[in-house]
Amino acid sequence: MKVIRSSREMYELSARWKKTAQVISLVPTMGCLHEGHLSLIRHAREVSDKIIVSLFVNPIQFGQNEDFDSYPDQFERDSGLIEAEGSDALFYPPPEEMYTENFQTSVKVKTLSQGMCGIDRPDHFGGVATVVTKLFNITSPDIAVFGKKDFQQLIIIKRLVKDLSYNIEIIGAPIVREKDGLAMSSRNVYLDSAGRKCALCLYQAIQASKKISHSRDELSAEQIIEETKKIVTQAGGQLEYAVVVNEFTLVPDNFVNNNSVLALAVKIGDSVRLIDNSKLRS
Amino acid sequence: MKVIRSSREMYELSARWKKTAQVISLVPTMGCLHEGHLSLIRHAREVSDKIIVSLFVNPIQFGQNEDFDSYPDQFERDSGLIEAEGSDALFYPPPEEMYTENFQTSVKVKTLSQGMCGIDRPDHFGGVATVVTKLFNITSPDIAVFGKKDFQQLIIIKRLVKDLSYNIEIIGAPIVREKDGLAMSSRNVYLDSAGRKCALCLYQAIQASKKISHSRDELSAEQIIEETKKIVTQAGGQLEYAVVVNEFTLVPDNFVNNNSVLALAVKIGDSVRLIDNSKLRS
Repeated sequence: MKVIRSSREMYELSARWKKTAQVISLVPTMGCLHEGHLSLIRHAREVSDKIIVSLFVNPIQFGQNEDFDSYPDQFERDSGLIEAEGSDALFYPPPEEMYTENFQTSVKVKTLSQGMCGIDRPDHFGGVATVVTKLFNITSPDIAVFGKKDFQQLIIIKRLVKDLSYNIEIIGAPIVREKDGLAMSSRNVYLDSAGRKCALCLYQAIQASKKISHSRDELSAEQIIEETKKIVTQAGGQLEYAVVVNEFTLVPDNFVNNNSVLALAVKIGDSVRLIDNSKLRS
Repeated sequence: MKVIRSSREMYELSARWKKTAQVISLVPTMGCLHEGHLSLIRHAREVSDKIIVSLFVNPIQFGQNEDFDSYPDQFERDSGLIEAEGSDALFYPPPEEMYTENFQTSVKVKTLSQGMCGIDRPDHFGGVATVVTKLFNITSPDIAVFGKKDFQQLIIIKRLVKDLSYNIEIIGAPIVREKDGLAMSSRNVYLDSAGRKCALCLYQAIQASKKISHSRDELSAEQIIEETKKIVTQAGGQLEYAVVVNEFTLVPDNFVNNNSVLALAVKIGDSVRLIDNSKLRS
């Protein structure tokens, strides 16, 4: 596996692959890999000839009081895992390769970035949209694979691709969970043992909500949200938001239907913020 | 010459060219072509194997009280001229191909878009940056050629390419002028005969400013701006702005130096707004 640190070298490798009509997939990551990331690489392998995994902790998608400085750095371990999954290239740029002096260009996907995680993280999705645009331009993929755990991000990236006329297919890969149901996340390493127990409330709320969604024909979103709030609060978590929204548009549903997704964000203890989501009737 | 109306067809043609390592140039236009545009195509021909000219009057770069609805449409004439210059493809998308329902993504180059034309046209450069990003993604050029007449736009596009990590070389082609010095512009067709005479004041101000810039070692930008104001006002024009700025950064110069550019915008009569610019010491 090639480890590539400069955009120039990445352009050249992609161009070479394109000359022989090889299908290129990009899997963007911020490192600190878990089974969820590895499943994205496996998805990419199934649909493409060449895989590029990117590893870059993107400063502009973190808010001022967020965990950019403490975000786990495990490059040796990560690159070993990425290579073992059969990636052809690892794009691992230094920060100054991505953000040069006088950097001032931003990409925003307006409406979709405003609700949900956008409420407490107002600049987050602008940072994500900007860095993903850069990664698309550097790697020229035919396909890019993102995890469904970051549900709002996935919908935003799909919109960005359409709005900015990229010829890239976006694949959303299923959430990978621990045995007890906790969605895999790089931020799970922050949890102490009490926090780890509490963190299960996201999955419990999802399971309970799916159960009542299947058992009742007419069910208001409000009832799901109330149930979620109850479960999270009883477990000692702090509910940042819970919404029932359309899986394609993120528009809130008044009543649960076959396209409804429950998405929630929960603060565990003082500093760990976890998200999760699921379709309610599937 | 192929006339291409869909992004899909344009992706496929560019990909085919790239497989044989042909260098592709893009020349973006809004139609209503004049010698200035044709010179851009000639520049492209010198540096590339394949030329794509785009023709799209981009609604999102016009303000509410600007001339989008009356912008001249001369497709038959334009496509004939483009073909005669040896362009290989003309990308001519219908509006619904560029802006679909729920379109909501924007590209902004912040600081560079704020001064000069950005003051009276606050959304203009955001609209330009967004459509140019789309055109880059649809055509995948190695080179794109823009005119120096739209000086601020050229600097913004260069910054966008760097900030968003595009592997595209931006070429700025010299201003083409009428015999009496008026810079070619699609908007010159709006001028009546009195307006046509008045419009010469932009070039006159440039010529006078260059002359004093060459004759004096120490010269404040303020003196150039005063001289410009005088010439424009005496001719009956209304000076929207005149600035002396660095040719690469658009930062205002206090004193004229070898990298100083005089840029100005003038309103002629009630509705015609013209711009022009020149280096002062070359």
